[in-house]
Amino acid sequence: MGKAHFGLIGLGVMGENLVLNAERNGYSSVVFNRTKAKTDEFLAGRGAGKDIVGAATLEEFVATLERPRRILMMVKAGQPVDDTIAAISPFLEEGDLLIDGGNSLYADTERRVAELESKSFGYIGMGVSGGAKGALEGPSMMPGGTKAAYDAIEPLVRKMAAQVDDGPCVTYIGPGGAGHFVKTVHNGIEYGIEQILAEAYDLMKRVGGLNGDQMADVLASWNQTEELASFLVEITEVCLRTKDPETGADLVEAIVDAAGQKGTGLWTVVSALEMGVPVPTIYAALNARVLSSLRSERLEAGALLPEPAAHSFNLGSAADEMAPLRDACIAACIVSYGQGMALLQEASKLHDYNLNFSAIGQIWKGGCIIRARLLQRIQDAYGANPNLANLMLDPWFAEQINRRLPGLRQVVAGAALAGIPVPCLSSTLDYIDSYRSARLPQNLVQAMRDCFGSHTYERVDKPGNFHTEWLD
Amino acid sequence: MGKAHFGLIGLGVMGENLVLNAERNGYSSVVFNRTKAKTDEFLAGRGAGKDIVGAATLEEFVATLERPRRILMMVKAGQPVDDTIAAISPFLEEGDLLIDGGNSLYADTERRVAELESKSFGYIGMGVSGGAKGALEGPSMMPGGTKAAYDAIEPLVRKMAAQVDDGPCVTYIGPGGAGHFVKTVHNGIEYGIEQILAEAYDLMKRVGGLNGDQMADVLASWNQTEELASFLVEITEVCLRTKDPETGADLVEAIVDAAGQKGTGLWTVVSALEMGVPVPTIYAALNARVLSSLRSERLEAGALLPEPAAHSFNLGSAADEMAPLRDACIAACIVSYGQGMALLQEASKLHDYNLNFSAIGQIWKGGCIIRARLLQRIQDAYGANPNLANLMLDPWFAEQINRRLPGLRQVVAGAALAGIPVPCLSSTLDYIDSYRSARLPQNLVQAMRDCFGSHTYERVDKPGNFHTEWLD
Repeated sequence: MGKAHFGLIGLGVMGENLVLNAERNGYSSVVFNRTKAKTDEFLAGRGAGKDIVGAATLEEFVATLERPRRILMMVKAGQPVDDTIAAISPFLEEGDLLIDGGNSLYADTERRVAELESKSFGYIGMGVSGGAKGALEGPSMMPGGTKAAYDAIEPLVRKMAAQVDDGPCVTYIGPGGAGHFVKTVHNGIEYGIEQILAEAYDLMKRVGGLNGDQMADVLASWNQTEELASFLVEITEVCLRTKDPETGADLVEAIVDAAGQKGTGLWTVVSALEMGVPVPTIYAALNARVLSSLRSERLEAGALLPEPAAHSFNLGSAADEMAPLRDACIAACIVSYGQGMALLQEASKLHDYNLNFSAIGQIWKGGCIIRARLLQRIQDAYGANPNLANLMLDPWFAEQINRRLPGLRQVVAGAALAGIPVPCLSSTLDYIDSYRSARLPQNLVQAMRDCFGSHTYERVDKPGNFHTEWLD
Repeated sequence: MGKAHFGLIGLGVMGENLVLNAERNGYSSVVFNRTKAKTDEFLAGRGAGKDIVGAATLEEFVATLERPRRILMMVKAGQPVDDTIAAISPFLEEGDLLIDGGNSLYADTERRVAELESKSFGYIGMGVSGGAKGALEGPSMMPGGTKAAYDAIEPLVRKMAAQVDDGPCVTYIGPGGAGHFVKTVHNGIEYGIEQILAEAYDLMKRVGGLNGDQMADVLASWNQTEELASFLVEITEVCLRTKDPETGADLVEAIVDAAGQKGTGLWTVVSALEMGVPVPTIYAALNARVLSSLRSERLEAGALLPEPAAHSFNLGSAADEMAPLRDACIAACIVSYGQGMALLQEASKLHDYNLNFSAIGQIWKGGCIIRARLLQRIQDAYGANPNLANLMLDPWFAEQINRRLPGLRQVVAGAALAGIPVPCLSSTLDYIDSYRSARLPQNLVQAMRDCFGSHTYERVDKPGNFHTEWLD
């Protein structure tokens, strides 16, 4: 028996599916899991009859692999990754490749790449998106590390990845933690879009009075448009249409309204703050999850702070695709992508990632959770101008924003009066209105800061730093 | 000549004013500055004729102080604090006290307290607020560290602090980095209130067409109300009334509309995200500064994304204090304080700070930048219920929120249609409307996450974790 082409550590659902994907693509595989029973179970079940063997120890696992060894770790981000590296390193040889396919903090990946490369191993931090189904059928993959290490896994990942018209959904992202940083931002955008759709659902339900099937029909119509056709709109339709088998009622209404947040969503917002990039739509999505988790406080507050007197407003009708609401969602989705791309621009400069934004648009077109028809336009926009500071400065997207703004304004204003929270939609509107304002009121903030703290200010009409004795 | 009672390192404007404050209160002082010329200049100028001497070296500085030595460091946060500690430590003796009065990251202070206490020195991380004038005349001070170390400086800081009806504006905050954490959150609240006033200014100018004096008159009327009477409203009035001596026009209009953000504002938002506390109003303020600094992009975007057709809306009239706008500002200011206090609640639990929230309200009533008449109500609210999860759950504040919400809704809705960004006001509204919602739409987010990632969900009607095969 020959040696295995590919090794996988960590038989969670993503790990299982990725090794089945590799094997289907002609890579004989060996798997290792910390608890051996899981390995046995997998080999007797989904792994049965495949060109996949199990290893009881990491030493045996390594010995079973052809050189240079290609080892994908699918373990929990954080300490478990370091523990796995420490445990396997003694058995590795020069040129062997470790790939971290989890959602690691990009700074951790930077550190690990430096450490492992200094020992003559290759180390790839690779974002993998697509959920369980994507992992099996073809995910979008965002590998970062040295180019040489990537070259050694390129044939494998190109076969495993989702395929779209212009190629597989994987490309070399950049050095160090670039791959994990791009995946982090991907997830931040995902938070944004999920919350936008949640707000649309809340409005259709609470203002429009639509039931699950009616809302699903609206989502289905949106999914026919270039601007909104996407995986998340598609599954939202499915979720809204699904019935509770026990009661026959809309299943979504039986689900607790509390969503967690941690890891990538948080890191996107924190990185953006540290790099000075505005990502208010993504923050609003993250914060909406935080607020959702304060259920007992919310119930207490509801008793003290009553709803406003009923206000209905025009969300549009199902027959016209709920046009104002649809337009609000289009503007907010564009802005979510735009904030993420602007953050990638800044990170690329700061960390010398030399990111190819057009290629990032390309590899997000298939496999991943934020795949959407709109990504072709993003690929094109950065193809036309690799230094585009913001998606809204691209002519096609500017025209979209201008066309969708009236709907967004109408929905945000209506929700404000009706008492329905729309944090992503309103943050998007404030962001756009700030971004297009030649004059913002922070001159007053600068005046205040000079007044109480002698921080000085700049003037619009001449260079220099000025101080005024305001209180004299 | 006897030894000095008090030592100060770092003759910036805050340091100079704090040592003059200590000396005025009967503490003979010695000062040290890295560049000796600054010391000489101070002693020949503002320090002349006072009971203040200079030291050329840290060794001489330490030798000049009575024991236990009380040494206040007013140096730049970060490495300079560690450098100063390293430089002075060899000369210190058991029981000597180092006080860091800068805006240090609270985690750095935690570390320094542990290190210095292990060497039998006392270490206090002390937030100081009040700007230059407050430092001289009496600031609000937030000292944290061991209680024993605080006891050794208590007589000094009680004399130096601002005095209000019920005592000086200083109290022992808590162990470790508690003092600097409370100061960080103080600054976060400050960011919020400054931005709220900037948005009010923008609306009065762009929608209401008011000039500086007219706006100042409105601010003056607000400053007469219990809800808004505050230092920041007072200085906003001053800033809006001040004329450019060269042109006679409103000076604020000559100031560049770009404000920086870093340090405490950022740390407030990052800590809140890490601790799972929603602070969207403070985030919006921080982010508004980030956006303001993208001036060249804004100018480019302004050409592509035109203003909406003119929309004026009812902000109220100057004769009725611009009632809707005033109410919007009241609600948003209450919420800024509330988000800050909620963050302190969580930090207190997480770090065992055992914070006294009523006492924090008390010491913020005088001296500091966010001093306001409203703080008496905050002091009272936490006095009545030390475990209050959110200010909005206090009856007096709940009543205020209910009374001010119609104005806030009107302003946010109007601004959305008029194209004026009001990120703090709209974030505040979304926050309140989320907080009082027994049902939020995150059930849909949980459905989506279970659909693509098998993340499972909880149900409203029975315990357990559930998974649905949505796509079958």
